[in-house]
Amino acid sequence: MALKSFVEVKSDSHFSIHNLPYGIFKHAGGSITTSRPGVAIGDYVLDLSEIHSAGLFDGPLLSNSDCFHQLLTELRLEIEVLSVASEVLVERSIIFAVAYMMKSNLNKFLELGKPAWKEARATLQKLLSSAEPSLQKNASLREKALLPMVQVEMLLPVAIGDYTDFFSSMHHAKNCGTIFRGPENPINPNWYHLPIAYHGRASSIVISGTDIVRPRGQGYPTGNSPPYFGPSRKLDFELEMAAVVGPGNDLGKPIDVNEAADHIFGVVLLNDWSARDIQAWEYVPLGPFLGKSFGTTISPWIVTLDALEPFACDAPNQIPKPLPYLAENISKNYDISLEVRVKPAGEEDSFTVTRSNFNHLYWTLTQQLTHHTINGCNLRPGDLLGTGTISGPEPESYGCLLELTWNGTKELPLGKTTRRFLEDGDEVIFSGCCKGNGYNVGFGTCSGKIVPSSP
Amino acid sequence: MALKSFVEVKSDSHFSIHNLPYGIFKHAGGSITTSRPGVAIGDYVLDLSEIHSAGLFDGPLLSNSDCFHQLLTELRLEIEVLSVASEVLVERSIIFAVAYMMKSNLNKFLELGKPAWKEARATLQKLLSSAEPSLQKNASLREKALLPMVQVEMLLPVAIGDYTDFFSSMHHAKNCGTIFRGPENPINPNWYHLPIAYHGRASSIVISGTDIVRPRGQGYPTGNSPPYFGPSRKLDFELEMAAVVGPGNDLGKPIDVNEAADHIFGVVLLNDWSARDIQAWEYVPLGPFLGKSFGTTISPWIVTLDALEPFACDAPNQIPKPLPYLAENISKNYDISLEVRVKPAGEEDSFTVTRSNFNHLYWTLTQQLTHHTINGCNLRPGDLLGTGTISGPEPESYGCLLELTWNGTKELPLGKTTRRFLEDGDEVIFSGCCKGNGYNVGFGTCSGKIVPSSP
Repeated sequence: MALKSFVEVKSDSHFSIHNLPYGIFKHAGGSITTSRPGVAIGDYVLDLSEIHSAGLFDGPLLSNSDCFHQLLTELRLEIEVLSVASEVLVERSIIFAVAYMMKSNLNKFLELGKPAWKEARATLQKLLSSAEPSLQKNASLREKALLPMVQVEMLLPVAIGDYTDFFSSMHHAKNCGTIFRGPENPINPNWYHLPIAYHGRASSIVISGTDIVRPRGQGYPTGNSPPYFGPSRKLDFELEMAAVVGPGNDLGKPIDVNEAADHIFGVVLLNDWSARDIQAWEYVPLGPFLGKSFGTTISPWIVTLDALEPFACDAPNQIPKPLPYLAENISKNYDISLEVRVKPAGEEDSFTVTRSNFNHLYWTLTQQLTHHTINGCNLRPGDLLGTGTISGPEPESYGCLLELTWNGTKELPLGKTTRRFLEDGDEVIFSGCCKGNGYNVGFGTCSGKIVPSSP
Repeated sequence: MALKSFVEVKSDSHFSIHNLPYGIFKHAGGSITTSRPGVAIGDYVLDLSEIHSAGLFDGPLLSNSDCFHQLLTELRLEIEVLSVASEVLVERSIIFAVAYMMKSNLNKFLELGKPAWKEARATLQKLLSSAEPSLQKNASLREKALLPMVQVEMLLPVAIGDYTDFFSSMHHAKNCGTIFRGPENPINPNWYHLPIAYHGRASSIVISGTDIVRPRGQGYPTGNSPPYFGPSRKLDFELEMAAVVGPGNDLGKPIDVNEAADHIFGVVLLNDWSARDIQAWEYVPLGPFLGKSFGTTISPWIVTLDALEPFACDAPNQIPKPLPYLAENISKNYDISLEVRVKPAGEEDSFTVTRSNFNHLYWTLTQQLTHHTINGCNLRPGDLLGTGTISGPEPESYGCLLELTWNGTKELPLGKTTRRFLEDGDEVIFSGCCKGNGYNVGFGTCSGKIVPSSP
């Protein structure tokens, strides 16, 4: 019999009981120190700190872990108790609280690794299923633990130590190469042998819904003039997804490609906003820098590899054959439909500009992860590995305006208006979804609106 | 009268009372959770957590701050007290301690900004001066707070959110360009208009003294063969320094170049270890990645801009004139003598291979920092901005083997042996020092030894 939740899940919901993606939320308008971990189910968020406190994570790995535990709640308790005992101690404890007021994140859970992730998933699927009374029939716990999604605000789900961005769609690599260097040899020879990547900026990663300030910067000089300086005139989005790293590895100890999947907790949508004019002028010889680092948006819900497993599909055949350290026993992609909509400034409606799919990637997530560590580089829980722009073979599946408007030489129709690049007030909305038999495993949306440069 | 410390400072010591660089240390062999902040004075480390506990940070900004406060010490105290009151509470407190056992770092002090840094410096210079009795005459505090350097182990001084590496020496840019593209136009036109940089890897930054595992990776294919794969055959050091960021800025709010110095706490030595063969094959078009991310070493003591101020000197005249956002009222470098020694595998002696100076940089630290934020990118306390390899005009002042051996085409003599690139067992030792009138403001050393790739 099909697994079904006692929580209502509408047929178009991304968040079926087969999904149960993880995020960090707070009560809308509440302080950041009230943030806590949750999973999405239908139009609700299940508060994992309440489930933990109720003792319902009762498996061998999680019953003794404090990974879903809320520091600040606990701390306040101690202050109260201490106030009975001694005035001096109360003061110490308050100093303590100020020092360690911090956002919640999933890093500790990610560090626990696959056995703990599987245990959590089994516990939560059981708890939310229509056959199980322990949460369903406990009204007071339900009221505390199941919160309408409209009443919460999502935060970054992980503390991101390092962010890396790959370049793993061949169609994207080919289009960019053709635009910048002509159609003869659009793809560099190294691209076929290794998943090309650059180190990105971790500090400017923001959660879906955060406005993006149009970056200022330098662009190519015209003739003998000094370089252009001002707000970017070629602001773009890039449709990407990103793997969220689990346990990771010690410095000097690479991860075998056939064990790499154990180090990927899940996947999010990622918009690698790009200022094409800044990027074009700065990127030789050290790669993208300020053309990218003004902002990167991720979706709030991490969809686990376990939830994606029913949608696994063969990765493309790689010719030339990868070197042995990148040759996988099983080389997987996932069938995830991706869509980009743009809501032009001042308009009510948004328009679909791209339909792509995660399965257009040439290099797999596991190859990316293993390549990243082959030199000994250490990955840490919560690190983000972006896929690079996911373009398909057809023009309707190109993953950025650079490709869609062929570097601004063509206009992209958007209802009554058109765009070559993004204008102030434009909102870009990504979505991603896997269609199961009568259910979805979706990512929700990843959105951001462009606001003008500060003067 | 010259400022003098009651602590003996030998004439060749880097750590005079005019310096007082900050670091994080632990007792040699002790647990990481005993780590705490200190300043170096002569052959001693002054434990700032003891000075804080003794109430000697009595200025208006630091007397109420817990930036030098030791979490774990405090926590244990609470556990002890609680054990008197209730068994249950003891248990809670221990859970708590396990969850928050963490390394100490200077980030909170850095976030406080320049007024707090000046207050700390004034307090510590007074406390350590021969004229002041409060520490000098307090034998029990002296015993707790002044520890022989040989009895401590240095740790990373800051939690590094993001690491950026610039390319700011014109001599280095010119040599690299000549080696890779020939002598006609060795420097790209953009180089003269902006401080070129790339995002580096934060996770693999290690403290001086940590062994560096030779990275494995791909190199250029020969003819129609697949790419080379194996241990790097062109392992190199890069002589750099790095600015440690203070308060930093919010996303979307650039820092004015004339206020940029307020956001730099101090400077360390940095070795940007590089695998030239991996780098050469991977770096087009997205820049250096695995050729760099296997390890980056920094020196343990952060020398403050205040301590460097007497050694400020004019930065080079920049032609063409920088764009207005990079044009500074005062454009400063610092006269810091830099030296690289190599101790070849199996030898007792080390040999000087480079003598350079920080004042060879074309782009200043403040221009680098401002450029980094001009697109709105946010810097956070503890971020590291590497200068890029600091090469001078003369061959004896080249800052890496790539330049010194002209990409391995010449041999570099090292006593009885020679090198083109680094071999397993080689140790590389950087040092940096400013010579004052009868005192030094030095950086100590930044060293690392190459160990073989894991099989």
